[in-house]
Amino acid sequence: MAEYVVNKLAVIGVGLIGGSLALALREAGAVAQVSGVDVSESNLEVALARGIVDSASSDPAEGVRDADMVVLATPVRAMRRALEAALPGLAPDAVITDVGSVKEDVIAQIEPLVPQTAALVPGHPVAGTEKGGAAAAFSSLFRGRFCVLTPTPRTPEHALDRVRALWNAAGSQVVEMEAGRHDRIMAVVSHLPHMVAYTMVDTVEERERLAGRLLEFSAGGFRDFTRVASSDPVMWRDIALSNREALLDAMTCFETLWKTLKEHIASGDEKALEDFFIRARALRARLPQVK
Amino acid sequence: MAEYVVNKLAVIGVGLIGGSLALALREAGAVAQVSGVDVSESNLEVALARGIVDSASSDPAEGVRDADMVVLATPVRAMRRALEAALPGLAPDAVITDVGSVKEDVIAQIEPLVPQTAALVPGHPVAGTEKGGAAAAFSSLFRGRFCVLTPTPRTPEHALDRVRALWNAAGSQVVEMEAGRHDRIMAVVSHLPHMVAYTMVDTVEERERLAGRLLEFSAGGFRDFTRVASSDPVMWRDIALSNREALLDAMTCFETLWKTLKEHIASGDEKALEDFFIRARALRARLPQVK
Repeated sequence: MAEYVVNKLAVIGVGLIGGSLALALREAGAVAQVSGVDVSESNLEVALARGIVDSASSDPAEGVRDADMVVLATPVRAMRRALEAALPGLAPDAVITDVGSVKEDVIAQIEPLVPQTAALVPGHPVAGTEKGGAAAAFSSLFRGRFCVLTPTPRTPEHALDRVRALWNAAGSQVVEMEAGRHDRIMAVVSHLPHMVAYTMVDTVEERERLAGRLLEFSAGGFRDFTRVASSDPVMWRDIALSNREALLDAMTCFETLWKTLKEHIASGDEKALEDFFIRARALRARLPQVK
Repeated sequence: MAEYVVNKLAVIGVGLIGGSLALALREAGAVAQVSGVDVSESNLEVALARGIVDSASSDPAEGVRDADMVVLATPVRAMRRALEAALPGLAPDAVITDVGSVKEDVIAQIEPLVPQTAALVPGHPVAGTEKGGAAAAFSSLFRGRFCVLTPTPRTPEHALDRVRALWNAAGSQVVEMEAGRHDRIMAVVSHLPHMVAYTMVDTVEERERLAGRLLEFSAGGFRDFTRVASSDPVMWRDIALSNREALLDAMTCFETLWKTLKEHIASGDEKALEDFFIRARALRARLPQVK
């Protein structure tokens, strides 16, 4: 008999991340059975039709029954409610993990709910696209990407090992990190760029109404922003509020540099401007290569 | 005998734009002969080796000799000097055009130098990539893109017709617009996004030095910014300074929205945050489709 990493996996929130994880584990032969839970009936139908899940339910308690592994994959501020609703059906020794982009706040929200006999392994697969829903899921989403696990003092070693094996089976490179450090890093390299993209697009929208005909000339730089800024508004609302302190700190840092750049332009300081632009290009050269 | 749109084309600045225009016109059979002028000898060698130009010179006056069409394709603040240096060799009835991303300032700089018998047709092909130099040039760069022409009261109709035919031959859709209007539109949809991307990348650079290990997690949103921010620093220094007023105006608009977003996050206003993000997504849906 085959040895599975997970026997029955319950995915609460069968969107891009939850759905892709299920597909990746199936493809790797790492899971025997997948149960999907979602607030959207039509999304569950897509998940069933695409073979992402074997069974589907809108009731978390029903969906997690007999699951040895439960993955919370809802927007981060919906996780507490989802876990609360799942508790009546939760197996006593279930391992619970999540895929939230913010870790400290999620841990504070959900760890107090985790039964003594169960285990929580907070996690964040650093991968995604601007598309959402089960329809957008694909099995290779996590391949070659980092998955950050942020175990707490209460996280048992055996549970950490199992969640590590889960993400390895999905093709990810697993790293461990303290939750607060994770949140400060993500505030800068992920959450800040999204805030910038949303603001950029809103600026154009405001000007478009004043001036008209802006959009037809929006080749080049602007399109990249609109892609990032088309990510799910609810998901990003939740991330912004859950990582508030670190994000505001990063946003203030951006604002300070923005004002500096404006001053260079206003004063016509050629040298300072060129240096400002050169510095950005130098960083790009230091980025790790991705496929 | 074939009827060419241009008999001898002189391209001053054989970079991505100038080089791609020469390649596009050659491919379309729209030009008999191309002369290239550049400050970089090695770039001229690439242009000759790739068959972008038939002859090459570092001396503008020599390069423009007998040319019926001269294209200024240097960074915008180098155009005045380039045209000045070309004047001794300029054919009396030459048509001069440029490809600068800013129009009012360029016109103010170069129009006074244009001899009475010659003609100036200011232009801006709205196309580009973050790569520069003759090595990056390719013939399809302008295909399906807009080229904005901003004729001045001094621009003769016959010259406008010829430059329109030039860009049509390169595959562009030509539109005419008042120079100031062009600059205000580009300040928002092109120049502002570049300033944002540079500032974003500089922010990460500053934080990377403090915190370390940021870059390895820079999947997703951030990479798009680094692409835009790797554009040529000198070119963007020139654009920022040449379109100073409109750009500062757009930057201030961005800053106002940025502060609003920070306030929504700081106060935890869920509804306002979601609206801020939804608004951006709605705009994307209205963008014209590109291939």
